[in-house]
Amino acid sequence: MDNNLKRYFAYRNRLDTYLYAMRVITIEGETIAPKKAYQERGEALSVLNNEYLALSLSDEFNDIIKNLEKNYDKYDEKIKRLIKLERKKYDLEKKVPINLQNKYVNLVNETQHFWHTAKEKDDYSIFEPYFDKLINKTLEIATYYGKTNGSYYNTFLDMYEEGITTEILDSFFNNLKENLVPLIKRISESNITIRDDFLNRKVSKKKQMKVADYILKTIGFDLSRGLLQESMHPFTDQLSKNDVRVTTHIYEDNFISNIYSCAHEGGHGIYEQNLNSKLPSIVKDACSMSIHESQSRLYENIIARSYEFTKLTYPKIQKLVKPVLDDVSLDEYYKAINKVSPSLIRTEADEVTYCLHVLIRYEIEKMIFNREITAKDIPSIWNQKYQEYLGVTVTSDKVGVLQDSHWAGGAFGYFFSYALGNAYSGQIAHYLTQEINFENLNNNTLKSIKKWLIKNIYQYGSLYPSKELIKNINNEEFNSKYYIDYLINKYKKIYNL
Amino acid sequence: MDNNLKRYFAYRNRLDTYLYAMRVITIEGETIAPKKAYQERGEALSVLNNEYLALSLSDEFNDIIKNLEKNYDKYDEKIKRLIKLERKKYDLEKKVPINLQNKYVNLVNETQHFWHTAKEKDDYSIFEPYFDKLINKTLEIATYYGKTNGSYYNTFLDMYEEGITTEILDSFFNNLKENLVPLIKRISESNITIRDDFLNRKVSKKKQMKVADYILKTIGFDLSRGLLQESMHPFTDQLSKNDVRVTTHIYEDNFISNIYSCAHEGGHGIYEQNLNSKLPSIVKDACSMSIHESQSRLYENIIARSYEFTKLTYPKIQKLVKPVLDDVSLDEYYKAINKVSPSLIRTEADEVTYCLHVLIRYEIEKMIFNREITAKDIPSIWNQKYQEYLGVTVTSDKVGVLQDSHWAGGAFGYFFSYALGNAYSGQIAHYLTQEINFENLNNNTLKSIKKWLIKNIYQYGSLYPSKELIKNINNEEFNSKYYIDYLINKYKKIYNL
Repeated sequence: MDNNLKRYFAYRNRLDTYLYAMRVITIEGETIAPKKAYQERGEALSVLNNEYLALSLSDEFNDIIKNLEKNYDKYDEKIKRLIKLERKKYDLEKKVPINLQNKYVNLVNETQHFWHTAKEKDDYSIFEPYFDKLINKTLEIATYYGKTNGSYYNTFLDMYEEGITTEILDSFFNNLKENLVPLIKRISESNITIRDDFLNRKVSKKKQMKVADYILKTIGFDLSRGLLQESMHPFTDQLSKNDVRVTTHIYEDNFISNIYSCAHEGGHGIYEQNLNSKLPSIVKDACSMSIHESQSRLYENIIARSYEFTKLTYPKIQKLVKPVLDDVSLDEYYKAINKVSPSLIRTEADEVTYCLHVLIRYEIEKMIFNREITAKDIPSIWNQKYQEYLGVTVTSDKVGVLQDSHWAGGAFGYFFSYALGNAYSGQIAHYLTQEINFENLNNNTLKSIKKWLIKNIYQYGSLYPSKELIKNINNEEFNSKYYIDYLINKYKKIYNL
Repeated sequence: MDNNLKRYFAYRNRLDTYLYAMRVITIEGETIAPKKAYQERGEALSVLNNEYLALSLSDEFNDIIKNLEKNYDKYDEKIKRLIKLERKKYDLEKKVPINLQNKYVNLVNETQHFWHTAKEKDDYSIFEPYFDKLINKTLEIATYYGKTNGSYYNTFLDMYEEGITTEILDSFFNNLKENLVPLIKRISESNITIRDDFLNRKVSKKKQMKVADYILKTIGFDLSRGLLQESMHPFTDQLSKNDVRVTTHIYEDNFISNIYSCAHEGGHGIYEQNLNSKLPSIVKDACSMSIHESQSRLYENIIARSYEFTKLTYPKIQKLVKPVLDDVSLDEYYKAINKVSPSLIRTEADEVTYCLHVLIRYEIEKMIFNREITAKDIPSIWNQKYQEYLGVTVTSDKVGVLQDSHWAGGAFGYFFSYALGNAYSGQIAHYLTQEINFENLNNNTLKSIKKWLIKNIYQYGSLYPSKELIKNINNEEFNSKYYIDYLINKYKKIYNL
């Protein structure tokens, strides 16, 4: 290894350590730390973030990247990718004055805090002034970042998915809408009634934690290199390949929430645990948020909500939640967990209506970046779109515009990843099932699935952009038809269409 | 606030944030983090420690302290104390080349790791080479620190207790020995037999965790500003006044270990939760390790092992561990938890023999710093002293020289704090019981005790050295006779002497 690379790795190691420390502190805050300490915790995170920003945007680091660039041609593909990723990130962040970045971080902390309160009290007016400031600050930062392919919004989208634009997404969402809206209509008109009253029977926390453990182990999350914890909202975060945290939230009157949260976060976790640690530095990180979501949605829906997986796990689940499912047949349970019903909450939506929730957020973000609307307009637009696309009436902002934490956390341009992730998962599953037979799915099948995913996805980290990663699997471009076909085939059977 | 102070506080805040991050990472590692991630964790800690050292020993920080020193006379007592403490610490640490300090930190990590293995395998030879290196490195660092009152060892002692010397400690330990050895002899010759077989009855972890919770709440540890966790060895660590962590370890066949661990760590925790946060920066920190130990030992022994506290809590404990203590009277239980019996393990020792365990470690440390012995000699000296002072035969190094983690962690010069802390607790309890009647001790009494401690000890943080802090309570110098009298009076009654 030459001296330029050595210098780079040593410096990157320092940067990563700051990220590591901030992650540990954040995870602790979201899981076990006393609530009363949130302020000190916020201040500590703010100081660490300042130190991190100063280091990551230093002239020294620029110099380190420059030295690598000078010798670009002599490096292999992996180091070339590393140089490109570092340069892109450095240049983008460098455009925004550090002072403004620090202010932004503090504003995000504040906005998140008031979002919590507003959601708890079901009062958007508590959140609105901070949300308004945050939108303005975000648009200010956007002017520093500059436009990509003609728009500021594209710059934000590109941060989560290299190369994605509103042009691509508009066409993607249109395609989904064209196919899913009729499907939803046919389902709503079908005369099949699915019984699901038993899903609200009470199951104790203790029993549910055992179910959580069982689901994670079954899908292949390695609990000796990770941890299952509890938090208000489920999440996954990785400290290292050997320390991946997944969380769940227990609702005693909704035990399947925990089951599919665990399958979802477990999917994220399996991806993180199986990245190729031999790839250099940031190249070994996950490819993109959409690819990440493709893994969580693959495990949550295509695998864990399949008839075959349900058949495998149902006897054990019945036993663990005894006697709650004693009078429920496998078939009844399978249909209940796949019942389609337009609803208010994204994270609880069924597979068929899910992407429409995402579409609504995407359309609102576009309007924000086009400066067509401000914070005060958002609730009514939100409610109107829910009525229009899903036919549901938003009864209060708590279950409407305040439901997700993303905007309060400053994650504008993130939401589409959920829909694109779904579509990726459909295409990935298409190839996967050509090689691995899901019929009579058992623990060995699940091991083979993981192996296949390691071979086709995980081992590449972020060596390629998502688009290429998908294409490399079978030399075929991304195509949302696989996902749509999957949905149509599955729900045709369930609803006898 | 003048600009020099502002600059100081901003800089100190940065330093404290590094300490905060390292503490969170360490606590997580000792409690819930996956064991397989210990290496990344160690590396992250090492990087953070390097960053911290570079900042804390920078010329900039020296300059900041110098500016405060220039205006020393115009500041109040609290800032004056702050300046003195910062200067002392800076100058001491600055004497050791950073390079050597970094090497030392890595060596400590390594030594701790091999200590764990050596203890687990009961094989001192695994530990010896690292311990030997660590001793040599410590002695090398000592030559940079220089001597205090004629010896290197005094310099190390002074780090944990301002102004303490081997001269003072020799006389202190002699006094203890002269009084306790005859007491132990009389107890061993007494014809009182104390029944304690029931202490080894099995109590489940679940039940014991409820007992832990009850004990912490009863003594006054605020669980909304702290957390009880489990770890291999119990400890207390503070992230802030609002986030104090105490841990316990559950042995199903030794349930009182958990009870008195909680009272001990809870005592540390109550001190940390009630420090005066209005004191400036480091002046609000705990006074010294001996004062810290005085609080843990006060709560563990003088309070929680008293007849009055036992009477108050026994019915609830009986209920929580039901049916294990159903056939045990209050009097039998009280005597069992205070049974005197020379033994091998310091942390499990009774109050009367405890200080002799500490004396042995103190004497060995003196020999190490006098270069009279090296790592290879220590087990045999250890065993010989246990035979001589406590009359017990060390059956293996696991329960001998390998029992404590302190030396592996580089904490030479710390052990005496346990004995001095006991003696402080005796004197503090003497004044405390003059104002607060322990008879018919109830929850209000416990609240009054905490108030008294806040008023006389906690509110001063480290504004005064321990010696002064103790003297200020009642205008009387520290005197170990109070502790000795306490022991003699208590055990005379129990053993009918």
